Amino acid sequence: MKTYLDCFPCFLEQALRAARIATDDENRIKRVLDEIGMMLRDISLESTPPEIGRLIYHKVSEITESADPYREIKKESTRKALSLYPVLKSEVEKSRDGLLTAIRMAITGNVIDFGPNLGFDLKDDVEEILNKDFAICDYELFKHMLSEAREVLYIGDNAGECVFDRILIEQIKRPVVYAVRDIPVINDATYEDAVEAGIDKVATIISSGTDAAGAILKRCNEEFMEIYNNSAFIISKGQGNYEALSNEKRPLFFLLKAKCHVIADNMGVQEGDIVLKGKGRKFS
Amino acid sequence: MKTYLDCFPCFLEQALRAARIATDDENRIKRVLDEIGMMLRDISLESTPPEIGRLIYHKVSEITESADPYREIKKESTRKALSLYPVLKSEVEKSRDGLLTAIRMAITGNVIDFGPNLGFDLKDDVEEILNKDFAICDYELFKHMLSEAREVLYIGDNAGECVFDRILIEQIKRPVVYAVRDIPVINDATYEDAVEAGIDKVATIISSGTDAAGAILKRCNEEFMEIYNNSAFIISKGQGNYEALSNEKRPLFFLLKAKCHVIADNMGVQEGDIVLKGKGRKFS
Repeated sequence: MKTYLDCFPCFLEQALRAARIATDDENRIKRVLDEIGMMLRDISLESTPPEIGRLIYHKVSEITESADPYREIKKESTRKALSLYPVLKSEVEKSRDGLLTAIRMAITGNVIDFGPNLGFDLKDDVEEILNKDFAICDYELFKHMLSEAREVLYIGDNAGECVFDRILIEQIKRPVVYAVRDIPVINDATYEDAVEAGIDKVATIISSGTDAAGAILKRCNEEFMEIYNNSAFIISKGQGNYEALSNEKRPLFFLLKAKCHVIADNMGVQEGDIVLKGKGRKFS
Repeated sequence: MKTYLDCFPCFLEQALRAARIATDDENRIKRVLDEIGMMLRDISLESTPPEIGRLIYHKVSEITESADPYREIKKESTRKALSLYPVLKSEVEKSRDGLLTAIRMAITGNVIDFGPNLGFDLKDDVEEILNKDFAICDYELFKHMLSEAREVLYIGDNAGECVFDRILIEQIKRPVVYAVRDIPVINDATYEDAVEAGIDKVATIISSGTDAAGAILKRCNEEFMEIYNNSAFIISKGQGNYEALSNEKRPLFFLLKAKCHVIADNMGVQEGDIVLKGKGRKFS
């Protein structure tokens, strides 16, 4: 997905939020905004948002001298999500269609803002998503493709959300490779976060090699690209991965909630909608 | 009120909105964002937001070559508000406390976003505000001060909103001087807009002399300052005027809905709250 002009104020907003989490020093935070402001004119609308976001988060880290400001927030969100795991798991087990319920669970994980706001009511969010209609639901295709796939590549998104992904992985009943970010970026899951969520018990965790909040292929490592290029079934979680991969031709399934109007417009849905969208050369 | 770091992304958002209304040329709109981005580092947090906004809207006008992009939107919002005038007026007349109801009406006028979104349901908004509790309500002081004032200075805000101000002016039952912006800025009311709303039938309209979306005193003209400095009762409508005047010492009453968390925090209320707040050296 290309970058839209609407993304520009949002880049500044995200930089401000990250800088505030990284430091209390108002002068440094002001400097972050000043420097991001100066970067705007060099942004090409042909880049994907995670490519721009990557530069922005590097700048935030550089100025605030903090490589992983979300560390504690990530740990806390994983802890919270894990405490709900037994309830979520039993919901899936008692449902009529465990796979579809697990897909909804995985989207719930994407819904929750594990960032600055930890005061969310996880149970209410789960309840809401479990009863919400999909705006796009390529579930029949998902099931069909999955039945033919020997293994699955699952591209993760945020920490905490991994716990919800784990529930879906357990329903997939096939070997899964779970790809995480190479180093910390915002609240995205790294290897450490995925292990804390217990993903190592159900999948092989690899680094995608990227340091952006989305799997930008030209920044991914060889190991990831080898699996990506040969995978017959790829799950892409969240907005950042959608932004990075929406124009790619592999057999991808995007699972997300459209949290901003730019993504919603791009997908042809409404802001707030939940989506299971299949895309790729095998889907025609 | 000083400028907060939270205002920075909002400046970019407002510039984008204004540029989109002024032109369809994406390259020009991109240039607006680029140049506003470059301006951020020169922003002093000691300036009030309308002072920064003034520079930003000048830049938007310059790049889009449009001095009054909101002209049609302003006309349409005045037309819509006028169509409701008889209903609003009869609501005030049949209420137990006509002055308080008229104050609520005036705040309703401030609530409605007369900007890009003209699809609002004015009647629902009126109904909501008429039944909403004030977060700050210095009404007793308002009545007392008004009873002692021979005339009133009323500093207007947006076009369309003027129609609602007219209803309050009619309840004030004293000579009113109604101050408008000197030239078009966003959807703020100018002389022409105030006349279209019928303010000329109930008050003397003057220009404050400012070209900003708030009465920045150092940019106001002599006529306005003469009245301002000698007035025993001043009504300041909306956020822009609050931002410009919140630190001043004159006997001011601020009527507004707190539409953003920065203003809400500054006033010690919640976002979405409605406020009638008295301030000034006579109020201790």
